[in-house]
Amino acid sequence: MPEIVESPRIAVYGLGAMGLDIVRILHGRGADIVAGIVRPGSDKDGRSLGELAGVPGLAFPARGDAEQVLRESAPDIVVVTVSTYLDETQYEIFATAVRAGADVITLAEEMLYPFATDNPLARELDALAKRHEVTVTGTGHQDAYWVNLVSVLAGSTHDLGSVTGRLSWNVDDFGRALAEQQRVNATAEEFARWQAHAERPPTFTHYSLYALAAALGLTPQGALRTTTEPVIAERDVRSKALGATVGQGRLLGYTDTDTLETEEGVTLSVSSRGSVYEEHERDFNEWNLTDSSGRPTLHLRDSDLDTAHTTCATLVNRIPDVIAARPGIVTVDKLPQLRFRPVRRAS
Amino acid sequence: MPEIVESPRIAVYGLGAMGLDIVRILHGRGADIVAGIVRPGSDKDGRSLGELAGVPGLAFPARGDAEQVLRESAPDIVVVTVSTYLDETQYEIFATAVRAGADVITLAEEMLYPFATDNPLARELDALAKRHEVTVTGTGHQDAYWVNLVSVLAGSTHDLGSVTGRLSWNVDDFGRALAEQQRVNATAEEFARWQAHAERPPTFTHYSLYALAAALGLTPQGALRTTTEPVIAERDVRSKALGATVGQGRLLGYTDTDTLETEEGVTLSVSSRGSVYEEHERDFNEWNLTDSSGRPTLHLRDSDLDTAHTTCATLVNRIPDVIAARPGIVTVDKLPQLRFRPVRRAS
Repeated sequence: MPEIVESPRIAVYGLGAMGLDIVRILHGRGADIVAGIVRPGSDKDGRSLGELAGVPGLAFPARGDAEQVLRESAPDIVVVTVSTYLDETQYEIFATAVRAGADVITLAEEMLYPFATDNPLARELDALAKRHEVTVTGTGHQDAYWVNLVSVLAGSTHDLGSVTGRLSWNVDDFGRALAEQQRVNATAEEFARWQAHAERPPTFTHYSLYALAAALGLTPQGALRTTTEPVIAERDVRSKALGATVGQGRLLGYTDTDTLETEEGVTLSVSSRGSVYEEHERDFNEWNLTDSSGRPTLHLRDSDLDTAHTTCATLVNRIPDVIAARPGIVTVDKLPQLRFRPVRRAS
Repeated sequence: MPEIVESPRIAVYGLGAMGLDIVRILHGRGADIVAGIVRPGSDKDGRSLGELAGVPGLAFPARGDAEQVLRESAPDIVVVTVSTYLDETQYEIFATAVRAGADVITLAEEMLYPFATDNPLARELDALAKRHEVTVTGTGHQDAYWVNLVSVLAGSTHDLGSVTGRLSWNVDDFGRALAEQQRVNATAEEFARWQAHAERPPTFTHYSLYALAAALGLTPQGALRTTTEPVIAERDVRSKALGATVGQGRLLGYTDTDTLETEEGVTLSVSSRGSVYEEHERDFNEWNLTDSSGRPTLHLRDSDLDTAHTTCATLVNRIPDVIAARPGIVTVDKLPQLRFRPVRRAS
């Protein structure tokens, strides 16, 4: 495996917490960072990347004129950490990089498997990338923990009836906006009213379940179903994000459960619980497999994860795979096995 | 991914518990089993494969004349489940298949990474396989649980200091011979005396640690070290395999710990505990990763495994990979990601 992670010219588009963590990882690995791109006129526009990321060097400024800076810096690949969904704004960001002849690797959750819905922008982007002979791939925490670890695990059985994931994340890790979105401190009645009228975008696991089906060689049958259940506080719990105490009987958050049936008769599902944690609770991913008669067969649990960190590290480790991949949108189920990329020690 | 698992002509060499489990899995998946090979003159020689495996069909007999049956049946791949180490006898079995122009896939533990020691038979076999343009690969439980799950997990970090595995298996699952080999019911003094003089072959994890280093892109530095510690009964424990009670203070088994340093500064180690279980104990594989400053980062645990089953199923799922691989000995770190192989439902 060539150590190409250290040779490509890399631009980072989006310098929020994730983008800057990726800059720090890349910098620490001696990668060739050639540009940083921010929203024009944002308070980061014009400040040096080194200052923004808190690392020595990288004295060149973050810039808002994406098209021009990509032309000048000629990156091989652009890391995009701007937003979640493949909407018109996100499409234009990807398209700018693609038209500049660069591969794109992104944390945008929809890009993990943009063909999971009939989003026409996915087909357009795929065609555009093929025309420019570059690759576009979405990766992140899901790549390892919701798709490929499960795929390897399932590779150790021959009789698969169901794959069931249970994920848990702490609302308090993500601030007030997400706490409100997760209905923290609502009453059960308020939640029921909200649920009856909410128009919610697809869950993150919606995309990962389609990627998992592809990794397992399974063909989705019918539409993915999502159900949502409130997580009710059994006692008063303090929410850091909300700066308030959630009273007993009120919502700590909710659990989304996505279920996808397949033509091969294997049922895939994931329950993702986003709630304010009590003191003893920790993030985890847990996967349970059964055979076709429903008997439990395989079990895997990873816990105490630093999800933000694994997200960024996974992206960095995927860069050589994306550079080597065929043109078009290439989803993570089509890439080689995710693997650690060692840095050679100077001897 | 082509569904080639159902099309190749497959011979099974070795029809013990593992070989017959593989016959049943292959048969259940509609694979084309063309021959079964046993030791000439064994009590299975001449009995039908269907009868031996307890499945309908497969009316042809298991045979002891390996060379001739391979010539007549012309398999694309030979599954070998005969023994553990690449000694002269095992070499001849592989060579017979290779000379017949067939790929070889085996559960022989040494074949997971036969270059882990300087066994000259590994180089000879590699050259022979290249000459005949066929592939030889060792796989099994280790492929998934000791190498590739860990490799994907490590793919979600960028700063790796150590990888530490803890495995546990129940001596009582494997009968009297292994119980005696694992020194069950010895006193601590007997164990110490045995340990001082025992000439033991390399542990199974010796091979898997080298395969793991290769999967992680790391270069072994210096020799692998093995240490062994007794597992002492804290109370009387009944051993099914021994048909006796192990008294308090005597050995339930022992734990081997293998450690491999790498040029990149990453330490790999595995402790494998083989002991008679108390009632609450279960098999597990547990992996803990730290960063280069020793801080715990990632953790993965799989438990309640049926190791015999995952061993056979992993082999079956690897058949298409081995058929597609380049000639020579190809270790599992070089194969595509292990994955489930669905059977299409007749509609």
